[in-house]
Amino acid sequence: MSIMLDEIREQPQVLRKTFIQGWRDVQPFRRFASRSDFRIILIVARGTSDNAAMFGRYLFEATTGIPVSLIAPSIHTLYKSSLRLSNALVIGISQSGEGTDVNLVLESCKAKGAFTVGITNEPDSKMARLVDEVFLVGAGKERSVAATKTYTGQLLLLYLVAWALGAALPADQTRRIPDLAETALDLEKNIAALVERYRFMNQCAVVARGLNYANAYELALKLMETSYVVAERFSSADFLHGPIAMVDRSFPLILFMPPGPTYKGLCEMLRTLQSLNADTLVISSVKVLRRSCRRLILVPGSIKELYTPIPYIIPGQLFAALLARAKGLNPDRPRALSKITRTV
Amino acid sequence: MSIMLDEIREQPQVLRKTFIQGWRDVQPFRRFASRSDFRIILIVARGTSDNAAMFGRYLFEATTGIPVSLIAPSIHTLYKSSLRLSNALVIGISQSGEGTDVNLVLESCKAKGAFTVGITNEPDSKMARLVDEVFLVGAGKERSVAATKTYTGQLLLLYLVAWALGAALPADQTRRIPDLAETALDLEKNIAALVERYRFMNQCAVVARGLNYANAYELALKLMETSYVVAERFSSADFLHGPIAMVDRSFPLILFMPPGPTYKGLCEMLRTLQSLNADTLVISSVKVLRRSCRRLILVPGSIKELYTPIPYIIPGQLFAALLARAKGLNPDRPRALSKITRTV
Repeated sequence: MSIMLDEIREQPQVLRKTFIQGWRDVQPFRRFASRSDFRIILIVARGTSDNAAMFGRYLFEATTGIPVSLIAPSIHTLYKSSLRLSNALVIGISQSGEGTDVNLVLESCKAKGAFTVGITNEPDSKMARLVDEVFLVGAGKERSVAATKTYTGQLLLLYLVAWALGAALPADQTRRIPDLAETALDLEKNIAALVERYRFMNQCAVVARGLNYANAYELALKLMETSYVVAERFSSADFLHGPIAMVDRSFPLILFMPPGPTYKGLCEMLRTLQSLNADTLVISSVKVLRRSCRRLILVPGSIKELYTPIPYIIPGQLFAALLARAKGLNPDRPRALSKITRTV
Repeated sequence: MSIMLDEIREQPQVLRKTFIQGWRDVQPFRRFASRSDFRIILIVARGTSDNAAMFGRYLFEATTGIPVSLIAPSIHTLYKSSLRLSNALVIGISQSGEGTDVNLVLESCKAKGAFTVGITNEPDSKMARLVDEVFLVGAGKERSVAATKTYTGQLLLLYLVAWALGAALPADQTRRIPDLAETALDLEKNIAALVERYRFMNQCAVVARGLNYANAYELALKLMETSYVVAERFSSADFLHGPIAMVDRSFPLILFMPPGPTYKGLCEMLRTLQSLNADTLVISSVKVLRRSCRRLILVPGSIKELYTPIPYIIPGQLFAALLARAKGLNPDRPRALSKITRTV
């Protein structure tokens, strides 16, 4: 099959390992954080890790009340601006720990007195050495160019970091996430059949909101990388401010629709899309949605919205990997890509 | 022709009017800001105004050193999170001043003690009434659904707000922007001929970095709204982390390439795109680029990078409006859109 698919399937065990080590490592950080007075969190990352950063943004703001800024690396690396970073926590996320710009930003913020945290899959990386505190994804070597197991591993560590910053995220809930991931993997056979319908799709938009907004970016990126589908990504609110004009019956939309705070707005959007005869694919654990979309990927179980991002991205990853195969492409060898991308 | 095109042409006079009133209004705010100790700037907006917000993000961080967070409205409106906003300046941007979520966020931040600023085209709007300080775009009524003159008006006011916050942006430089806009409008005839080449383009990506990154979003949005082109938008650095896999000879790219800090990285990207035989359209004032892309829109004059965003978006606006016409579409009546979009 493909390395990408193998790595998708490894996720429950990767998440278990990441939780065990992360839970131990986060204890001293929690004690330190409770004595600190972080007024702002800045997160720096690229590619898939930047999608994890976007999840972190929503998670931290929703659960800790600390404002978050997703760093624009060029401000530091090209414009050489000296940001005022008093009481700032700066978090870098990188699978390899070798992203040039991410590490430059971390170094520059550390030199200005910010406390730095790194989330990486590589304990011997430059990032792991330079930050004040490192949290490790326990994914082992990630061989597929399209990152999957490190993305969900990064998300899991962000739950633990949020907990350390005071979020009400009980350990027993976070510990259950690997089981949710395992259940979501049961969807593989259904999705293998489903992707045939999308064999000739060459463009689409992925839509979500709130905690799953990052998943819209991540699924779109997987579709671009592995299946060369021109995949837009939007929040449902932004979509109505212009991009909806693109929609016709030949422009498919994929929506993440967990029950919870974002559900109502997405239902309204789905009704608008129905009136435009759009082709819609919904990822949700709400069965009744079957009636209002063309295709539904039903994520099993009853999952609190706060814990949906990891089990919800797994069918998305499967969709991208299996669609690539259905299109006769090798998802492990995307055109023009290598595993470590060095940008400044 | 079209209302959109008329409004594009109005921009020099709108910018002059906006500067005169803005320059007067910003003086007391500058005195107030110099006594305040703003540690973070949060900006909230939707649609085109959100693209202006993204410009503001780069401008404020690059010229004032104050970290900026682009607000995720759902954190306030759906997750009802209580962000800690000590020493925060919160800026709302809305053409109509009636965006439901934008105003809800401003109200919520004001109630928590943040100082609020509104940038709007409508002096009698809800936003104008609720904020502590309002700056008005002098665009008159904007009748086209696709916003153009209010976008550049918002950008101009953001220069003035940055100046009030301590940025080294001399008034005589900002005052010259309407003249730069006027010169850029001379490109209309060339662009009217150029768009014929893109008559059958139905997807593309728009790429830029730094201060012009917002223009990539804005041009993509205009193309989506008025010409139904599925237009992706990327920073050149992000593009190399995955999306570049989509590129082949039938996937066109539009690049904003001002001389300055972002130029070198974009040149490297252009070389990569050449090696992939991609079809590239560059917007720049650097003549020599003609040799390394398929088509060049040469913005006249020698413009400092800091002041390129307004004159550089104008050929983009013209391109979108004239492409819609070449495609037989009416840019003033996008499918499924109305002028005021109310989302929560």
